[in-house]
Amino acid sequence: MKKEDQVLLLLKEGGSGFVSGEEISKTLKVSRAAVWKEVESLRALGYEIDAHPRQGYRLEQVPDKLFADEISHKLGTKVLGQHIISYEEINSTNDAIFRLGEQGVKEGVCVFAEHQKKGRGRLGRDWNSPKGKNILVSILLRPPMTPSEASRLTLVAAVSVVKTVQKITGIQAGIKWPNDVLFKNKKLCGILTEMNAEADRVNFVVLGIGLNVNSKTSELPEGSTSLKEMAGKEVSRIKTAQELLKQLESDYTDLKKGRFESLAEDWERYSVTSGRRVTATLTGRKIHGQATGIDRDGALWIRTDQGLQEKVTAGDIQYLRG
Amino acid sequence: MKKEDQVLLLLKEGGSGFVSGEEISKTLKVSRAAVWKEVESLRALGYEIDAHPRQGYRLEQVPDKLFADEISHKLGTKVLGQHIISYEEINSTNDAIFRLGEQGVKEGVCVFAEHQKKGRGRLGRDWNSPKGKNILVSILLRPPMTPSEASRLTLVAAVSVVKTVQKITGIQAGIKWPNDVLFKNKKLCGILTEMNAEADRVNFVVLGIGLNVNSKTSELPEGSTSLKEMAGKEVSRIKTAQELLKQLESDYTDLKKGRFESLAEDWERYSVTSGRRVTATLTGRKIHGQATGIDRDGALWIRTDQGLQEKVTAGDIQYLRG
Repeated sequence: MKKEDQVLLLLKEGGSGFVSGEEISKTLKVSRAAVWKEVESLRALGYEIDAHPRQGYRLEQVPDKLFADEISHKLGTKVLGQHIISYEEINSTNDAIFRLGEQGVKEGVCVFAEHQKKGRGRLGRDWNSPKGKNILVSILLRPPMTPSEASRLTLVAAVSVVKTVQKITGIQAGIKWPNDVLFKNKKLCGILTEMNAEADRVNFVVLGIGLNVNSKTSELPEGSTSLKEMAGKEVSRIKTAQELLKQLESDYTDLKKGRFESLAEDWERYSVTSGRRVTATLTGRKIHGQATGIDRDGALWIRTDQGLQEKVTAGDIQYLRG
Repeated sequence: MKKEDQVLLLLKEGGSGFVSGEEISKTLKVSRAAVWKEVESLRALGYEIDAHPRQGYRLEQVPDKLFADEISHKLGTKVLGQHIISYEEINSTNDAIFRLGEQGVKEGVCVFAEHQKKGRGRLGRDWNSPKGKNILVSILLRPPMTPSEASRLTLVAAVSVVKTVQKITGIQAGIKWPNDVLFKNKKLCGILTEMNAEADRVNFVVLGIGLNVNSKTSELPEGSTSLKEMAGKEVSRIKTAQELLKQLESDYTDLKKGRFESLAEDWERYSVTSGRRVTATLTGRKIHGQATGIDRDGALWIRTDQGLQEKVTAGDIQYLRG
């Protein structure tokens, strides 16, 4: 651990009290001047540290930056986030995790970024998010599943996000099939699940989540919202990231234990698609009808205007009036 | 096209007749000495070229090497093999195609190799094949399918291999679930299907095929055989590779057109698993019973000794006596 991080840890252990420079200096076996230097670097990172000539140092405020150490601190998960890498800027967090997956890194590693230069969304679309306001994270998973079973992870992740949002804001968001998380019909979160697999065995899954946290509506693409807009106040990105990792670990564990049914029930409960009139674009044709539910593979059932039941396994839907 | 390839093409057009050095020299606008030099390089590659002072040059024999130009020559496919890359030695043809897939190269590109340094088989196993005797090829496909649908490609490929073997040797091989091609219970061909996908959309599939062609049993891993052993004589690797690409293109097209049922019927017909007593290793337990058939997702049904019907979607089976 770097000296800087050691100083930070001592200040955190001090809680709301002061920690004397002498104590830090003795514990870390460095000079008082060196302690001062580390405090200055922490301040440069955004940590607010009160310094008092006789009493010493006190941590006043942790910056709302997605530093790996801040997310790890008292995280309490067993797999997800045991290894966290944070970037100020990266091309794409999903690409970074994909490379780690190919290199055989074990599951649970997370890449966070304050900004993506080439952020990707589903179906080859872009994902744009203002710098330093939201959560952009990709997670490496190695589910012992077939590709078809692993596809369910994308639904499970949407369920985890809704539960996380509820914990943080107290407000329940909705899921638009397959895995957009919405509030009042505005997009709060996008999920991009990618995998590398053999025909009957997944090598690894990259779960990418872009959650709008502290952005204002005006900073986001049209039709988007954020936790801040929902809650009427800023929320802690670190706390949100921690809750998200904890919730994902819990739901992922359930999925691995074969408890998809109960997760699918959660999905149905949060769904704002069932009962809606929708248009789905299939290969070469569009169907119009009423969404009636999802099946256990995550496909959407639509009762068409012609009275047929059609199953939509891929792609997107648009809501219709009526 | 390189001068060497142009000379080769002229000799091929000449068929069993001689082509005069002067004619080649005029057509290609190079000196007679340059023509001689190109003929010498072709000979160095293994082409047998007869040279007659007055009559000119005649192509006697094409080497049985998997040169891209030889496989492309009169191949007649529309997608598969429109771009062929041949390596004398490579780490893994599947890895090479995976990289091309990530770079956005269009479907149909094939990588052949005379030898793989790190050949891979299913379930993380090695795939070893003696140098210059067999067919090692990987093909990039971009099926407009979900991961679960694309998993069927691995069964379809086994069907294509059986049909190709039948065309080349006149003998019908069998399929051991999921996709080993066997003759008299010895392994003739292995297939490794890998994919890069979103949860509901395949980005690309890498179809890797290792077909034992001219190896002797003694050169192969235990329990293996080759077309040569089956047919009692050497067979042309180039012709086999061409038939394989043609057959795969035809069956792949059928799959894309939604004709999986008829391919699954072929699979059932070639299957040497149905009716056999087998042991399957599932997560944490083994089941023993009789294989009774495959369903439309390619899963194997086993009637266990306890009288239960169990569905096996992944992994391997062993045959049992009885």
